[in-house]
Amino acid sequence: MVDKMNIVLLNPEIHVNTGNIGRTCVLTNTKLHLIKPLGFELDDKKIKRAGLDYWKDVQLFVWENWEHFWQENIENSNAKIYFATTKTKQRYTDVKFNDSDYIMFGPESRGIPEEILNKYKESNITIPMLPLGRSLNLSNAVAVVLFEALRQNNFEY
Amino acid sequence: MVDKMNIVLLNPEIHVNTGNIGRTCVLTNTKLHLIKPLGFELDDKKIKRAGLDYWKDVQLFVWENWEHFWQENIENSNAKIYFATTKTKQRYTDVKFNDSDYIMFGPESRGIPEEILNKYKESNITIPMLPLGRSLNLSNAVAVVLFEALRQNNFEY
Repeated sequence: MVDKMNIVLLNPEIHVNTGNIGRTCVLTNTKLHLIKPLGFELDDKKIKRAGLDYWKDVQLFVWENWEHFWQENIENSNAKIYFATTKTKQRYTDVKFNDSDYIMFGPESRGIPEEILNKYKESNITIPMLPLGRSLNLSNAVAVVLFEALRQNNFEY
Repeated sequence: MVDKMNIVLLNPEIHVNTGNIGRTCVLTNTKLHLIKPLGFELDDKKIKRAGLDYWKDVQLFVWENWEHFWQENIENSNAKIYFATTKTKQRYTDVKFNDSDYIMFGPESRGIPEEILNKYKESNITIPMLPLGRSLNLSNAVAVVLFEALRQNNFEY
């Protein structure tokens, strides 16, 4: 059995980004976890209207809150989780990903809360960028880190 | 002087994708080339309305057509150009990028024309994906390949 990478979006705000990330996940056999609250509705009609014809193929897990996600996925398992943020110097290319790791991204407007980042500092990772006030579009950031993890694991999916 | 990577979009169709790609280029000191015809207008008012506040910082080159781009950038230079496509088996991680290479992507709906791909087969590169009829969103594909090229060159920008 091929293990699967896990992308985790904490409180995503913009449905187009989550849509694009779902597409990336389908194309790479990656699980997608969404932690509520979400800034949009996961409503069948809206998804159809947005042209997300691949959405039915997303391996989607929706969690009521942070605790719910954490207890079910991380706490009692050997799972490794990384936190993508602009607030660390550890590059996403400096860590060794395994093929069933979790990679978490925060909401578009503010990123992962500092209390989480500070608690797991050694698992914070960042994409090198010029300091311009804005960072990469969320779906692009997910694609960059996920494909580095997949590259390190020889794209076995 | 730091050399700069070059992203080339041949006949891009969707302004949101080009907008996101511009953002990725600004954040990595990468030049962005657009080859006409474009599926949208590069109009100041429209760009402002789309909230692309970083657009003024894009190192943007707009070319009237393929020949114009080719003559001015590739033909009489030592520049190396890669063509991103789903129609090759050579992975984007199998080539050795230099820090001033060009990486071309075709229009969202149909990709780079086969006559170009066939002429430069050894420079065709692809992102491994499951075969689902659709491929990655264009701005995601650009981010994935560009960051691999930047990774290989130690993110010097």
